[in-house]
Amino acid sequence: MAGIDAVELTRELIRRPSVTPADAGAMDVVEQVLAGLGFTCRRMRFGEIENLYARIGKARPNLCFAGHTDVVPVGDAGAWSREAFAADIVDGVLIGRGAVDMKSAIAAFAAAAAAALAEGAVKGSLSFLITGDEEGAALDGTKRVVETLMAEGEVIDHCIVGEPTSAESFGDMVKIGRRGSINVGVRVEGIQGHVAYPHRAANPVPVLIRLLADLQARVLDEGYADFQPSNLEVTTVDVGNPTTNLIPAVATARLNIRFNPAHRGADLAAWIQAEADRAAEGFAGTITLTPAISGEAFLTEQGPFTELVAGAVEAVSGQRPDLSTTGGTSDARFIRALCPVVELGLVGRTMHAVDERAPVEEIRRLQAVYETLIQRYFAAPPSA
Amino acid sequence: MAGIDAVELTRELIRRPSVTPADAGAMDVVEQVLAGLGFTCRRMRFGEIENLYARIGKARPNLCFAGHTDVVPVGDAGAWSREAFAADIVDGVLIGRGAVDMKSAIAAFAAAAAAALAEGAVKGSLSFLITGDEEGAALDGTKRVVETLMAEGEVIDHCIVGEPTSAESFGDMVKIGRRGSINVGVRVEGIQGHVAYPHRAANPVPVLIRLLADLQARVLDEGYADFQPSNLEVTTVDVGNPTTNLIPAVATARLNIRFNPAHRGADLAAWIQAEADRAAEGFAGTITLTPAISGEAFLTEQGPFTELVAGAVEAVSGQRPDLSTTGGTSDARFIRALCPVVELGLVGRTMHAVDERAPVEEIRRLQAVYETLIQRYFAAPPSA
Repeated sequence: MAGIDAVELTRELIRRPSVTPADAGAMDVVEQVLAGLGFTCRRMRFGEIENLYARIGKARPNLCFAGHTDVVPVGDAGAWSREAFAADIVDGVLIGRGAVDMKSAIAAFAAAAAAALAEGAVKGSLSFLITGDEEGAALDGTKRVVETLMAEGEVIDHCIVGEPTSAESFGDMVKIGRRGSINVGVRVEGIQGHVAYPHRAANPVPVLIRLLADLQARVLDEGYADFQPSNLEVTTVDVGNPTTNLIPAVATARLNIRFNPAHRGADLAAWIQAEADRAAEGFAGTITLTPAISGEAFLTEQGPFTELVAGAVEAVSGQRPDLSTTGGTSDARFIRALCPVVELGLVGRTMHAVDERAPVEEIRRLQAVYETLIQRYFAAPPSA
Repeated sequence: MAGIDAVELTRELIRRPSVTPADAGAMDVVEQVLAGLGFTCRRMRFGEIENLYARIGKARPNLCFAGHTDVVPVGDAGAWSREAFAADIVDGVLIGRGAVDMKSAIAAFAAAAAAALAEGAVKGSLSFLITGDEEGAALDGTKRVVETLMAEGEVIDHCIVGEPTSAESFGDMVKIGRRGSINVGVRVEGIQGHVAYPHRAANPVPVLIRLLADLQARVLDEGYADFQPSNLEVTTVDVGNPTTNLIPAVATARLNIRFNPAHRGADLAAWIQAEADRAAEGFAGTITLTPAISGEAFLTEQGPFTELVAGAVEAVSGQRPDLSTTGGTSDARFIRALCPVVELGLVGRTMHAVDERAPVEEIRRLQAVYETLIQRYFAAPPSA
């Protein structure tokens, strides 16, 4: 069984410009590497999306690594100091789209797995759940793979997601939960007219303003366990009426709520619907809501598994990571239905940005953390 | 002194496509007609706008007719049943842009003046204050003519404005006042950021929503004399943020207040500024207001002059007109600084619309009302 160079594998993956939903051969690279290590590889194609579930071993516990091969677009290509898919190393820093988010983490875990397998440390199963649709709609990716595995009774005991979770320096943060997120579009339709004759019109704007004012005035909660308070932000309001003496026919808005486990998306949608119904009373028009739940809040309670992960980070980096629940959503929200999840990866600062980059040395340290984690996991498995 | 055919003069004026600020020779037509009646004509050009002040007689009282030769654009030319500047008469109805608003009124008053002068009924002075900028910015029109006449000490005792004031049938309404109007632009600048990290951003949208909600919640008054209650309408709110997870940097809105004489525009602007200052407290951004007062409220108190006008209408049409203060602004707001003003004209229903039109018979009735009014005015002048 050959060893794997995590940095070289990262570079090979970066050279496949797998901007969602394109795969560009990235999944083949992962599959070939894992097949070479003895993994049973199963490709799952949903719509135009490539997914891969690979497992070695049949016994429990089954420790899974989850990640994605897709990347966000390059953006302003001219602003990059190096070609975004060339994977150049400059002064010990690997530059390229996916260097942080998160081709490096896939490569680091593959290299760690190769080493742990060679040492005979894997007393159970290791698996990889890799998708090509994390940065996009995320409809044909991890969500559907998880649904398929659950339907088949596949058991995964614990999962590590390789998202870039470090904040300022490598290993300063892992994520044990994420807030949920719901977007709600609001469309108020009234009756157009002249501002001098408001009784002949039905202005949708004041109705929308009152509704939004009532919604944003509610304190959703004061926080929950390890979470910040839930928060509602109105992100846009649009009428587009250029005429000073015209009452417009339609006003729209959109809001986003980031919520902790004190709430479920459906309950928040129902609350907003009730407020909208109240706002529509006596109004000669209609209010239409378009709620879209991006993900429910999830929390992996602190315990032996989170301690094991934090301990592996501390052993390599010398600092104990924060166990955080901050930030946006990730595919961990889908995997949480299967098993406890912790997210652990590189410093996220340059993700999605021009000149996304990772010091080569940090990729190797991430590999070392993953290897320590695998060794300790199978030496003394936490209960699921 | 030759008689004037009000309908033919209206058609001649319609055939000059004087869409603001274009004059297209319309003012020359008016000037030639009035000069032919013996009026001393004085053209006043401000910027690109033609204006005319014409007077016959030196003695008081001086009864003035005010109106405008400019018209609004044709709009969808293909939707007209006749060419908009052809002034065709179809089944006794004159069709054309300006047929109602208000070339017909200028022609009708000129014809009435010709008849009254021929009868020797004008014991004092008659004057015309005609502008080419009523439908546009109204900066270089009646406003500047009035300023000039006031600076020169010109005395006008009473004024009739020929705007189309009838609502459903000819003579059912004259206007003895108009509400004031103020537009206020609101611009809130904050700090852009990610919705998941609102503490690193300063969302301008909730600040704007709270401000607008507070403004629209105030009852400005319960009405004033012959006026409806003052009214505030938010006419547009715009952010234009297409991204669900982004807190935007800027949010804007615009509102309009139609106010009765219980308020002055400057006081309303000061109130909104105070509310904005309060809304900006504790906000890491700025709120900028752009108030623009289109006109102050004015009222010509009911008395001998309004009775004289109402009586002339009733004598011709058989119905007593409502003395109303409803509707949008007109140039009467500027003339009110000079003397008492009443507005009296045709049915306004088709003004600014496709197939703007007036029955020929109503133009002749308007002429008859104006003639009766002139005769009665000089027979027993109301005090100014």
